[in-house]
Amino acid sequence: MSDEKEWQETKFQRKALQVTDAQARLMAQAKRLEPQSVPLMESCGRYLAEDINAPHPFPAFNRSAMDGYALIAADTAECSGGSVVWLEVIDNIPCGAVPSQVIGSGQAARIMTGAQVPEGADTVIMLEVTETRQTDGLTYVGIRKPQKSGNSITPLGLELRQGDDLLPKGRLISAGEIAVLAAFGVHSVQVYRRPKVAIVATGTELLEVHEPLQPGKIRNSNSPMLEVLVREAGGEPVMLDAIVDDLELARSRVQMALDAYDLVITTGGVSVGDYDIMGDLVREHSVEMLFNKVSMRPGSVTTAALRGGKLLLALSGNPGACFVGFQLFGGPVVKEMQGAEQPYLPQWTARLGSDYNKVNNYTRFVRAKLVIKDGSVWAFPADIDESSVTVTIKDSDCLIVVPPEEKGLAAGARIQVIKLPGEIRG
Amino acid sequence: MSDEKEWQETKFQRKALQVTDAQARLMAQAKRLEPQSVPLMESCGRYLAEDINAPHPFPAFNRSAMDGYALIAADTAECSGGSVVWLEVIDNIPCGAVPSQVIGSGQAARIMTGAQVPEGADTVIMLEVTETRQTDGLTYVGIRKPQKSGNSITPLGLELRQGDDLLPKGRLISAGEIAVLAAFGVHSVQVYRRPKVAIVATGTELLEVHEPLQPGKIRNSNSPMLEVLVREAGGEPVMLDAIVDDLELARSRVQMALDAYDLVITTGGVSVGDYDIMGDLVREHSVEMLFNKVSMRPGSVTTAALRGGKLLLALSGNPGACFVGFQLFGGPVVKEMQGAEQPYLPQWTARLGSDYNKVNNYTRFVRAKLVIKDGSVWAFPADIDESSVTVTIKDSDCLIVVPPEEKGLAAGARIQVIKLPGEIRG
Repeated sequence: MSDEKEWQETKFQRKALQVTDAQARLMAQAKRLEPQSVPLMESCGRYLAEDINAPHPFPAFNRSAMDGYALIAADTAECSGGSVVWLEVIDNIPCGAVPSQVIGSGQAARIMTGAQVPEGADTVIMLEVTETRQTDGLTYVGIRKPQKSGNSITPLGLELRQGDDLLPKGRLISAGEIAVLAAFGVHSVQVYRRPKVAIVATGTELLEVHEPLQPGKIRNSNSPMLEVLVREAGGEPVMLDAIVDDLELARSRVQMALDAYDLVITTGGVSVGDYDIMGDLVREHSVEMLFNKVSMRPGSVTTAALRGGKLLLALSGNPGACFVGFQLFGGPVVKEMQGAEQPYLPQWTARLGSDYNKVNNYTRFVRAKLVIKDGSVWAFPADIDESSVTVTIKDSDCLIVVPPEEKGLAAGARIQVIKLPGEIRG
Repeated sequence: MSDEKEWQETKFQRKALQVTDAQARLMAQAKRLEPQSVPLMESCGRYLAEDINAPHPFPAFNRSAMDGYALIAADTAECSGGSVVWLEVIDNIPCGAVPSQVIGSGQAARIMTGAQVPEGADTVIMLEVTETRQTDGLTYVGIRKPQKSGNSITPLGLELRQGDDLLPKGRLISAGEIAVLAAFGVHSVQVYRRPKVAIVATGTELLEVHEPLQPGKIRNSNSPMLEVLVREAGGEPVMLDAIVDDLELARSRVQMALDAYDLVITTGGVSVGDYDIMGDLVREHSVEMLFNKVSMRPGSVTTAALRGGKLLLALSGNPGACFVGFQLFGGPVVKEMQGAEQPYLPQWTARLGSDYNKVNNYTRFVRAKLVIKDGSVWAFPADIDESSVTVTIKDSDCLIVVPPEEKGLAAGARIQVIKLPGEIRG
């Protein structure tokens, strides 16, 4: 066998892993980054590094749910058919104040929504159904209907008792989490550090976005796309200059990036051809190759390796394959490093919106639009479905998972979809 | 009628609008802000202020989809059962290069994935199924099977022809949009300015997040929550100090905020009680009240007004009502000011996951969890459903719309849900 022949064999005979196996191999090496304390508002979009329990009951006091009068329900038992019970108003409790009096039989306190219900009182009647009168310098409130004990009072601890689970470790912090953390006075929050993710495109054909088009060349759209996707997954993208197809240059650039950052994502240079520089790089001795072929379309050449404890994820240079590769591998790693409770994208059962006939012996991830119709989830495959396609990325909110060896899928078929990040536009 | 009585009548006899009417009244006053040019990467998360058409075909040249050889399909017609056709390799075309030769009959060019297919060639054969030999200093590629014209070539303009619609005005720019804008060299993008949204909480009962709990008081969780929600909707939140229940102070603070910012959102001070300072404010002559009661629970006191061309949205101080009010009114206004094509949250048909029996004469917006199961959308109402509740906000990804006068809804019932921003966790 000639040297050329042997070299070709090594390059072509890659062992393809199933997607889930490749994911597992990658995720096993994704190290959770160190926790750090950040001010509450900076914790938004990050993942909790601690379980949080309620530091006090919530509400912390019996709270009036109405503007009205706090009183003893039993005092109103004798209201009926027009007869009015009159109670002496002995206190006025605005929000934020502490009641100054205990309510006894025949007494009531004017109270605001959100204010602390005074001791003695066991119900609040809304202002709109009461009347008042002044007699001898005293104020009385008149009530025409019997009231039930507990009405319009939110009791201490209704939402949470002290020590109850509030938020679990790994939880993504968003508006609702910010609200409860603020309500409990958690002004400093333990979250995992965001990974710094170096992004490097390879390819002699790449132009910068601002450069005019040149024959045979294309603009580098993968780097800007990955910058957004990394940020969306919670990472801090670090944009490195694109590198031409040169193994020496790629090796030194990738090594420096692996030393300086938490994760390196490259695009391009993973084909089986002459310029498989990332492929060559992960075959070197200093590098532990995790996989260099995955049983999937697009992106079968997706490659991952470990060097000095740092992960290198080499995605295809085809925009569609780069996008799918990031969603299946890159996003989960970036989230895992931040301790996310759910690093993978959600997978749903759905129904196929229109026939899909492209098949092959690898699992295919088909970009598609989701539509929720009459309570059912439908997925419509993109018109053009090739790994190189850029324009359908923007119109896709899921990936249809087409198993290998399918004979083609008819509209209405039950399918699995991977929900992509972002809102469903359908 | 006493002064007190008359004052009470004015306060209580608010005319309730239906939610959609209130939304329409508010949105009619939400002015689209001015377009501005921003660098591509800063356009992410913003809304396009122009229609964008493809400035050139995409791909801009016939592109090889494989590493292999470009050749003329007809030349391989006579391959069959082991007989090999040998073609002279006259060029080597890496990515980004321009072919130097026109391919004639009997000739081929080595070509990389993504490179420009040379003139004359009409198909590309993958490297893995070819062999090569050297004779008299010339290289030949051997092919064993007839090839079809057009194989492994992505033709010029396959994705888009020059002038085709690329992205419409009003489109939210995310990873996929960034990818196509980059691919077409759009390095500067016209987007609408983000509104500056002043957020003011009112209430004497409010503590700052870092303050220790005090009897009868609560921490201000609405302001931090709104800060996140406004940012999520694309606005720039401007946090103003909370104001105590004082009409004079509120008036001057709100007026200054309306002068300085694009929109003012307040929470609290809209009850029917003694401290209805926002309610009092919108009844003043300098202010055009748009509505001060909406036929909804929670948040029936939600109030909106116009002053000097600027909008004031006064939300309830109850955290749950504040949240719902923002989602129904605040978010849509903030997005409308940015020219969003879809300012309202999506509404889906779904099935009710468990019985819901609370009814009243207003439309109720019930916080709920979505679960996608066997291709169907299910919504499970939160256990505690009161306007004052804070903890269920974090666990909700939709609002179930319960029409007024329903007799209660059984599990499995068809319902309408409003999808809240963010990923479905179920």
